[in-house]
Amino acid sequence: MVKIDPSRLWKSIMETARIGETPRGGLCRLALSDEDLEVRDWLTRACEQLGCSLAVDDMGNMFATRAGWRHDADPICVGSHLDTQPTGGRFDGILGVLAGLEILRSLDDHGVETEHPIQLINWTNEEGARFAPAMMGSGVFARAVDKGAVLASRDRDGVRLGDELTRIGYRGEEPCGRHALDSYFELHIEQGPVLESEGKVIGIVEGAQGMRWYDLTVCGSAAHAGTTPMQLRRDALVGAARIVCDLNELAEEMGGGALATNGVLESTPGSRNVVPDRAFLTIDLRNPDDGVLDVMEERLDRIVSDRCSNEGLEFQLERIWSSPPVRFDSDCVAAVREAARRSGQPTREILSGAGHDAVYISRIVPTAMIFIPCEGGLSHNEQENAEQEHVAAGASVLLDAILERDRAR
Amino acid sequence: MVKIDPSRLWKSIMETARIGETPRGGLCRLALSDEDLEVRDWLTRACEQLGCSLAVDDMGNMFATRAGWRHDADPICVGSHLDTQPTGGRFDGILGVLAGLEILRSLDDHGVETEHPIQLINWTNEEGARFAPAMMGSGVFARAVDKGAVLASRDRDGVRLGDELTRIGYRGEEPCGRHALDSYFELHIEQGPVLESEGKVIGIVEGAQGMRWYDLTVCGSAAHAGTTPMQLRRDALVGAARIVCDLNELAEEMGGGALATNGVLESTPGSRNVVPDRAFLTIDLRNPDDGVLDVMEERLDRIVSDRCSNEGLEFQLERIWSSPPVRFDSDCVAAVREAARRSGQPTREILSGAGHDAVYISRIVPTAMIFIPCEGGLSHNEQENAEQEHVAAGASVLLDAILERDRAR
Repeated sequence: MVKIDPSRLWKSIMETARIGETPRGGLCRLALSDEDLEVRDWLTRACEQLGCSLAVDDMGNMFATRAGWRHDADPICVGSHLDTQPTGGRFDGILGVLAGLEILRSLDDHGVETEHPIQLINWTNEEGARFAPAMMGSGVFARAVDKGAVLASRDRDGVRLGDELTRIGYRGEEPCGRHALDSYFELHIEQGPVLESEGKVIGIVEGAQGMRWYDLTVCGSAAHAGTTPMQLRRDALVGAARIVCDLNELAEEMGGGALATNGVLESTPGSRNVVPDRAFLTIDLRNPDDGVLDVMEERLDRIVSDRCSNEGLEFQLERIWSSPPVRFDSDCVAAVREAARRSGQPTREILSGAGHDAVYISRIVPTAMIFIPCEGGLSHNEQENAEQEHVAAGASVLLDAILERDRAR
Repeated sequence: MVKIDPSRLWKSIMETARIGETPRGGLCRLALSDEDLEVRDWLTRACEQLGCSLAVDDMGNMFATRAGWRHDADPICVGSHLDTQPTGGRFDGILGVLAGLEILRSLDDHGVETEHPIQLINWTNEEGARFAPAMMGSGVFARAVDKGAVLASRDRDGVRLGDELTRIGYRGEEPCGRHALDSYFELHIEQGPVLESEGKVIGIVEGAQGMRWYDLTVCGSAAHAGTTPMQLRRDALVGAARIVCDLNELAEEMGGGALATNGVLESTPGSRNVVPDRAFLTIDLRNPDDGVLDVMEERLDRIVSDRCSNEGLEFQLERIWSSPPVRFDSDCVAAVREAARRSGQPTREILSGAGHDAVYISRIVPTAMIFIPCEGGLSHNEQENAEQEHVAAGASVLLDAILERDRAR
């Protein structure tokens, strides 16, 4: 039986973790930054050493292919992303790509010939931290997101994503989404506390919760902090702060796994003795049930309009992105379940709380995911951590699942 | 009787208002920026054309002196500042400096010989918008603020104030605070609604309210927005937002002119799908009564510690600056009152809500201020406006008050 090399996989993770390393042991490897370029070059070299053919599409998605014996077969794919949050960890996304690389290496070590080509994918800008929204590369590939719009999207310094792709030399020739995939498997840390708290090692991911993203701008009037009576103020920051508190209470009150997050709050002019005239707030709502998300959105509308009218503020609230709840392909999930069973590890079925490239890809190709635990459920955090044994177990199940898929097709 | 030239004064204001002009008709002329350099050079040329001797001290404070006949007399001074907020107006500070310039010009036009030298001062970094705290130039001059500390202070890009002084060429030789002043008079817009609403043109400023500035940092834990249950979060932004709401309610509840402002709220990592782990908040408390400020500070302490312990957050709260309530010199205020009476304009006694260079200078030199109305009480705002007639009336009273002072001494 083909086996992965756990220590080689761990070494790859630790070696690339030096690219964009933060002082506190995390990673800052924003999409299309110099650090992203460096890790892409690392992956290119590693795939070339294996003799894999490497293609890059015009979204910067990278595809390394190990040929199968049937030349007309579509590739069975594994992958994830190598970009991170500004204070991200060493496993989110990275595990899926480097476990895929380890699989290609292990197949070579054991001289395995598969029927289908096996393809490793590194998707561009999964995190959405520098350029919003998230999961751009897989979103364009799945025709869920408009390519022209995301190429034109800008970071906070006004730099265009398309220009950055060209600058780092990863704007390829192949039109994104052109080539066919047989199926897609993604290994990922859970990014939540469930597996760890229940002592499970493998999560068989059946689907993902829905999520909706909003941009809110609140406008008041700038005024002098020392001379403007409280009752005459139209303070945009106070309005935004009330909305933050209300949304937090809304999610707690709704329960049932309802989540509300304000990741960004920026106010202008940003001077300590000036009442702010403008506040920009991001809103992230999540739930496994689309009906619950409808209710949350309705409440959000009401909270914003009530708070703003009370404080004499104007506002603009826009839903900029949404992803409905997803169920993964039953055959692919079954292949994962079977591989997990054979591994002898403790397993459980689970839903993904986070967005993943697999969520978009599942719209066009049979897809499944595998989770392993992460310490304390922490992710998007420099302290993010996973155990070496769990990493090895996850990669083994991934390899076994794609071989299962190869045999079954 | 010596008279100022109202249209020449207005022309100076409008001419310099092109330096750092914003699209909405305000000014962005941050301390020690290229725009600050440009307006300083403008003032230098204007003073040299008058034959005034110009000195710059090692804080960048500018002193233009028109000699008096008594060579051993200390100068009677007028002035204010030429720097602005990031979205500031055309009058705040600027009026005091350019009215002072107009006085020097008018004395020349009429060939007036004063006993004391008359000195025009442009203080460095009154606003504190780029480098905190505010009123640095006058603060160091009055020995209320440590020169080494403020020269080492940095803006948000990490640039040192001392380096910027050198870069723009306004780090002079004279040690700040070395030379003696006879007295100091500052003309300013009220920056509040009182004079306008009562139909008064001249405010005889008797003193200034007290103010206290704080920096608050709240620390939680970064976490994934899609997988971290609400009850397990330690969200620094939610904690800071609750504090903003509480402080706003505190000031409204206390009444009696109590003011609380949060001008800056910044959170990290600043990504829409990450629970923020850190929030930085500025707090500005003001009241004419130091006892009330003590109560507000006590309540602030309690609000911060209660909210943070409820949300499982750590915090650091530091009072970074305070200015006790001030009473101006009775002789100087009397000179203003007499000049205001002679002007025939409607007047009233008033307290300053804002901080001014005059507040620091009053600690070491007899000082007074004159206010004129500004439209809608708006200041620190691009719409800040003052009427040409009120500007002329204020400058006339300023000239008359310093001549009164010159005769009386």
